[in-house]
Amino acid sequence: MKIRIFVTLKNGVLDPQGKAIHHALESLDFKGVKDVRAGKLIELDVADDTSDSDLKKMCEKLLANTVIENFEIEKLTDQATEEA
Amino acid sequence: MKIRIFVTLKNGVLDPQGKAIHHALESLDFKGVKDVRAGKLIELDVADDTSDSDLKKMCEKLLANTVIENFEIEKLTDQATEEA
Repeated sequence: MKIRIFVTLKNGVLDPQGKAIHHALESLDFKGVKDVRAGKLIELDVADDTSDSDLKKMCEKLLANTVIENFEIEKLTDQATEEA
Repeated sequence: MKIRIFVTLKNGVLDPQGKAIHHALESLDFKGVKDVRAGKLIELDVADDTSDSDLKKMCEKLLANTVIENFEIEKLTDQATEEA
């Protein structure tokens, strides 16, 4: 079972990487970019019987720092993102 | 308009960060994790008239290294964010 985990910084947490990307896009003359936030994407291939609560625990214990980051878990079924 | 860009390593490209996460999950006693790949998530807030080709150019010129990385562009409409 393929899982995608999105880890994003919470609102209000400074994001220097996002700022740098924003600045670079402007220097490359891309107009109309209002904001950029950088996050992490972690793709897991797990056994089909892995429970949702286990996935949540993986995020809370290791993958995301829940003090400053939010996480979202998306399951990629065979029919792609239908279930998402 | 909110845009999410997923940058992932191409198949066959070594991913030490993913390996480290995999190893750490195993040390934390999570069973059944077969593979882990680490990627990047970039959230953009762009003007509504930004064209798809502009978004593609941003990825090719700055956000992804297309030699070793793939990218996917996802538009989050107001409806989609409600569904998510």
